[in-house]
Amino acid sequence: MVEQLTILAPGLLGGSVAQAARARGLARRIVIWARRPETRQALAGQPWCDTAVDTLAAAGRGANLVVIASTVDSIIALARQIAPHLPPGAWVTDVGSVKGRIAREGQAAVPGGHFIGAHPMAGSEKTGWEHGNAALFERRTCFVTPLPGSDPAAVAGVTAFWRGLGSEVVTVDPDRHDEIVAHISHLPQAVASCLCSFLATKDPAWKNFAGGGLRDTTRIAASDPQLWRTILEENRGPVLQALREYQAELAAFESALSRGDWTEVTARMSRGKAYRDQFRT
Amino acid sequence: MVEQLTILAPGLLGGSVAQAARARGLARRIVIWARRPETRQALAGQPWCDTAVDTLAAAGRGANLVVIASTVDSIIALARQIAPHLPPGAWVTDVGSVKGRIAREGQAAVPGGHFIGAHPMAGSEKTGWEHGNAALFERRTCFVTPLPGSDPAAVAGVTAFWRGLGSEVVTVDPDRHDEIVAHISHLPQAVASCLCSFLATKDPAWKNFAGGGLRDTTRIAASDPQLWRTILEENRGPVLQALREYQAELAAFESALSRGDWTEVTARMSRGKAYRDQFRT
Repeated sequence: MVEQLTILAPGLLGGSVAQAARARGLARRIVIWARRPETRQALAGQPWCDTAVDTLAAAGRGANLVVIASTVDSIIALARQIAPHLPPGAWVTDVGSVKGRIAREGQAAVPGGHFIGAHPMAGSEKTGWEHGNAALFERRTCFVTPLPGSDPAAVAGVTAFWRGLGSEVVTVDPDRHDEIVAHISHLPQAVASCLCSFLATKDPAWKNFAGGGLRDTTRIAASDPQLWRTILEENRGPVLQALREYQAELAAFESALSRGDWTEVTARMSRGKAYRDQFRT
Repeated sequence: MVEQLTILAPGLLGGSVAQAARARGLARRIVIWARRPETRQALAGQPWCDTAVDTLAAAGRGANLVVIASTVDSIIALARQIAPHLPPGAWVTDVGSVKGRIAREGQAAVPGGHFIGAHPMAGSEKTGWEHGNAALFERRTCFVTPLPGSDPAAVAGVTAFWRGLGSEVVTVDPDRHDEIVAHISHLPQAVASCLCSFLATKDPAWKNFAGGGLRDTTRIAASDPQLWRTILEENRGPVLQALREYQAELAAFESALSRGDWTEVTARMSRGKAYRDQFRT
């Protein structure tokens, strides 16, 4: 248990970190910084928020562990702003979906190798701390992305924290992380969003006929476009690479279908099925 | 209520038709024809199967309504084989995912305009009547695809039957049906299968990191490739058309991402979100 957990800019993930930390007894005191007064007021009424503060100086004071829960485009700015207010030895982690630049600039912003980037593979097409829940991280992968200059005690502490929230920690180089999530998270988002954006050009009545397949395949297309813009901006290179390779896969499938090569069509679908069948339930 | 409902070649859909018909009291007697002796033996022990028969002559005898539940490539063969054994006035419908050719050839096979094609938009990535359930059709679209030569009483009777199973019937021209499902069912299948077939070429460890987004987006990739082969073979033209237009959508998205046109990227994702948000829950 840490004495004080501080969470900055809680959305769905930050709110869930607070709830899970309280439910699992990971922190004696939970302090949350939010920019908007009405958010602070609402947070102050939650059993998993002991104090809602309005300055980063107040947020940093007494913190043992800081979780920066903002969108990827403001994580580093918040790290730089809170760093001067942190007690010596405080650890900082985040929830950003992209890690290369954030891990490097975070390390520069927080002295002592005490910034340890993280990315819990949990979420929802919904946003906002109101949709958070204490079970969000359970049995989900959480990437932790230390650098060679990271303090080993901070790595161990941050890893233990994410594990304590119920997630399964995978330690990986930040650039490798970005390549992985470009494939298993950002590409699926682009595929689902484009499927809906394409179908939106067709007869509007069709959407009323959607079966379970279309529903599931497109669920994440309901995610917040502005949030995704920040992720795609941050991870553009790896996402483009994955998207181009996926387009080649689609083109090969289309070609097989077009020439009636059913052996090839079936082989590709079978390879996809074998892959999907191996997912853990 | 019909006196005798006969179901041919039950898989997930045929088994569910039998269960739903029994649960909702739509048929006094349910007769099921299955090719394999062990299937007939297992069916005979089900409360929703009164008789399991081994010939199409026995299946046709006394039938008021026949549901052909086989894969699309054998529906017409079964219609032709059972037609001579049907009492005058018996209606025939099916569950095939593609309707143009089947509606036309079904009409030729069953006299009196008594073949009325249908396609319930219900299913699962699982196959086999063992996975059927009585609630499968509830609040799901069921397309009914009559032709100009269809008998109005047969159209009304088949429509009432599918409605009785809990589905929401949409009456549509068979070729228009095939264009619709190419977009809202067959294209999503190709997209999901290709996503998995592409990811299968990458580090196998990645699949253990899959979050809810990848899981949902790829669920239908676990569907039976042989079953899908028959569907894609039957609906190749419309699927190719939809697939090519989807590829153009992906290419436009990729281009916007590549040149950093965030207004365009966000506009496309927003159009997708607006579309998905309109799905009925």
